[in-house]
Amino acid sequence: MAADAVDRAVLEDLAAASRILVDQDVFDAAGHVSIRHPERPDRFLMSRSLAPQLVTADDIMEFTLGCEPCEDSRRPFIERFLHGGVYQKRADVMAIAHGHSAAVIPFGLVKTPMRATYHNAAFLAAGVPVFDIRDRFGATDIVISSAERGAALADALGDKAVLLLRAHGFVAVAPDLPSAVFRAVFTEVSARVQLQAAMLGGPMAVLDEEEGRRADAINLATVGRSWELWKKRVI
Amino acid sequence: MAADAVDRAVLEDLAAASRILVDQDVFDAAGHVSIRHPERPDRFLMSRSLAPQLVTADDIMEFTLGCEPCEDSRRPFIERFLHGGVYQKRADVMAIAHGHSAAVIPFGLVKTPMRATYHNAAFLAAGVPVFDIRDRFGATDIVISSAERGAALADALGDKAVLLLRAHGFVAVAPDLPSAVFRAVFTEVSARVQLQAAMLGGPMAVLDEEEGRRADAINLATVGRSWELWKKRVI
Amino acid sequence: MAADAVDRAVLEDLAAASRILVDQDVFDAAGHVSIRHPERPDRFLMSRSLAPQLVTADDIMEFTLGCEPCEDSRRPFIERFLHGGVYQKRADVMAIAHGHSAAVIPFGLVKTPMRATYHNAAFLAAGVPVFDIRDRFGATDIVISSAERGAALADALGDKAVLLLRAHGFVAVAPDLPSAVFRAVFTEVSARVQLQAAMLGGPMAVLDEEEGRRADAINLATVGRSWELWKKRVI
Amino acid sequence: MAADAVDRAVLEDLAAASRILVDQDVFDAAGHVSIRHPERPDRFLMSRSLAPQLVTADDIMEFTLGCEPCEDSRRPFIERFLHGGVYQKRADVMAIAHGHSAAVIPFGLVKTPMRATYHNAAFLAAGVPVFDIRDRFGATDIVISSAERGAALADALGDKAVLLLRAHGFVAVAPDLPSAVFRAVFTEVSARVQLQAAMLGGPMAVLDEEEGRRADAINLATVGRSWELWKKRVI
Repeated sequence: MAADAVDRAVLEDLAAASRILVDQDVFDAAGHVSIRHPERPDRFLMSRSLAPQLVTADDIMEFTLGCEPCEDSRRPFIERFLHGGVYQKRADVMAIAHGHSAAVIPFGLVKTPMRATYHNAAFLAAGVPVFDIRDRFGATDIVISSAERGAALADALGDKAVLLLRAHGFVAVAPDLPSAVFRAVFTEVSARVQLQAAMLGGPMAVLDEEEGRRADAINLATVGRSWELWKKRVI
Repeated sequence: MAADAVDRAVLEDLAAASRILVDQDVFDAAGHVSIRHPERPDRFLMSRSLAPQLVTADDIMEFTLGCEPCEDSRRPFIERFLHGGVYQKRADVMAIAHGHSAAVIPFGLVKTPMRATYHNAAFLAAGVPVFDIRDRFGATDIVISSAERGAALADALGDKAVLLLRAHGFVAVAPDLPSAVFRAVFTEVSARVQLQAAMLGGPMAVLDEEEGRRADAINLATVGRSWELWKKRVI
Repeated sequence: MAADAVDRAVLEDLAAASRILVDQDVFDAAGHVSIRHPERPDRFLMSRSLAPQLVTADDIMEFTLGCEPCEDSRRPFIERFLHGGVYQKRADVMAIAHGHSAAVIPFGLVKTPMRATYHNAAFLAAGVPVFDIRDRFGATDIVISSAERGAALADALGDKAVLLLRAHGFVAVAPDLPSAVFRAVFTEVSARVQLQAAMLGGPMAVLDEEEGRRADAINLATVGRSWELWKKRVI
Repeated sequence: MAADAVDRAVLEDLAAASRILVDQDVFDAAGHVSIRHPERPDRFLMSRSLAPQLVTADDIMEFTLGCEPCEDSRRPFIERFLHGGVYQKRADVMAIAHGHSAAVIPFGLVKTPMRATYHNAAFLAAGVPVFDIRDRFGATDIVISSAERGAALADALGDKAVLLLRAHGFVAVAPDLPSAVFRAVFTEVSARVQLQAAMLGGPMAVLDEEEGRRADAINLATVGRSWELWKKRVI
């Protein structure tokens, strides 16, 4: 298995990220997280097909950006094409998380856009597009199961940090693994906050784009504090 | 106890299903799950009357489809008639779960139909009927405590995967035990998602019937990944 | 301490009831449960002033119906007058639980009455009155801290199973301890269900009075199944 | 590290407060709590920059009211200026908690004011102001990262017990540490109750100012019961 060449600590962090997103109630029995290969930008690393709570460093596989496993005969996730599609289009993206957390899905079903309800969700202030697989592929099984679907999804993501998938879930991308985890967590939390604020009615004084940009810079610089805690909880 | 003739692993899986549905917040101190007898399609297997969190393989009883215990003097659940009624009408059903999870009950009380809010709930896209026991039996204690009530409930279920019981709970049926558990879990999760989407207002771009059929096929083929995790958590 | 004369198992059940209501998310750091003295109907038993999660059999005190401690110098709950007031007016009541669970409080603040959303909440179908301490006592500290306040509360309860206290919490009464616990639990759960059903809008096909009476009889007869589980979880 | 001069039990209580607020679902991977120095009213004590669940007595630092660390080279929280600002303006404040709990944030985004929904939230009855950092500082990163921002925040708090920060979180202040923790906890719980009551619609019979004053006095006098429990849970 080609991922053996990667520093063990990197693989362990990636596996921990998977378990962290379960512990933080973002992943359930499904969901996957990947990183771009630290030395080979034309490769990415991701668990074999397995419930995210069970992932360990030994379960990590290496893939080409075309989503071919590298000398590894284990069963990969079908949806690795979601990851490959984004890594191909976005050279700045170093880590990706994809899940189906319950508070996020409503925003992929209705016209209300997701907002950045507070500083921890600052990365949402630039806008959160919705990808409707029907627009391009008609009636499907919803799964991002081909390079073509992965590319269409990456187009919909554009230069944003988070993309919603209609009737499916979300994708969060970031310049490093802890930030991708942080963004997945606070996409879910902010969705919950926005749903509750919607109950109260009236306009919402959410973060504007400039506030979002500034607060996000702080989040990226201080994410280590959350990451250390989250890792401790799952080791 | 006649269930002794059944492969021990089958009984252990059925008992685990009961505990899984507690662990996944679908069952509380009540709720029951059954399977059709693997060798005798005119029999089914189900726990004696016991809180689902406490069920072990030794608690499984065997019943005729008329809900008579087979050489077993232990106290059965009153509502075994719900299971027997469905097994009689639906030869394709191999497993049934019945519970009262909180997010599902509202949809049995109001006119809003349940929808398939995302791929994990694809089995809801074909429609979710509501059984109102009053329509046929007038004022009752709500319990499915007779063959007549069980048959009326099975009529209401028709060829669907899930039936809501007004002011009571839900029934989820499937071609195998892991899929019945999966459907019970995601009936509850999808209900929660739909309640939250309803807060936001406007039309919901839920799965249509064709998308539901296709996504459900994927779910049935990949349910093992969830099942393995869920089982590990309760053993 | 006079409660020593009571069968130890009775005291242990009462203490367990206190911890069960924490474990079931009905009590937080506050809340108390009492029983009428099994041999002396003019006495009741209740924990000393202590967070309910910490209560053991040794913490149980004995009180007259006038709420005087019986040969016991430990610090009692101020709100024992709530219990005493009800035991005086309601000879049929053998157990009482009082708490402040979050989903119930809204129904004491607005005009919407609580309904029996499903069979487990059947005891609510007869109606759930609201006690507003202002009506009789003007601006207070809200606490049921005197015999006069306890009597007014008992008047408001009437012959019902549950009373809401405006801006405060609820009282659940029953013919035995497991049923008082069951009613406290499902008052909270049903409140949550009703809040969610309210989001969907339109009329709710809740249990009517006759259905409530019949379903409640089943609940009272089968409460042992829940009680055994709940006790196991806190011992 | 100057905090060494402080009684060890005081430092342990402050560290416990941090972990309690995680255990009570008020803090997540962020949030901080401080006390005024017990002997030097011109100093305050607060953890170094660390996830609140990990804080122990050894992590406590001492600061001047101008937020300079006292002989301590460890990395402090940026937002210590929030604490310093309040201690400077409010001689009656002995403890402060600041967090971002999910149910509170909506009330900083919309026009609906927070109310005291029940006796445990009595401290909210005097009114809950909202601090919008934009009003004075324009587009920022939202962080209270300077003495100027801390002072503006303290102005907005005025003589109240709780202040909301738009798109950020809340500050709760009190005359002692257990009460600051209590207020942080029940700010969150009462927010949840109010959100649920809002779903039901119509006017809310919340605590009025006089009721709030009276009920708050009881809470301050009996907070020890909650505090003892909460501490036990995190030690």
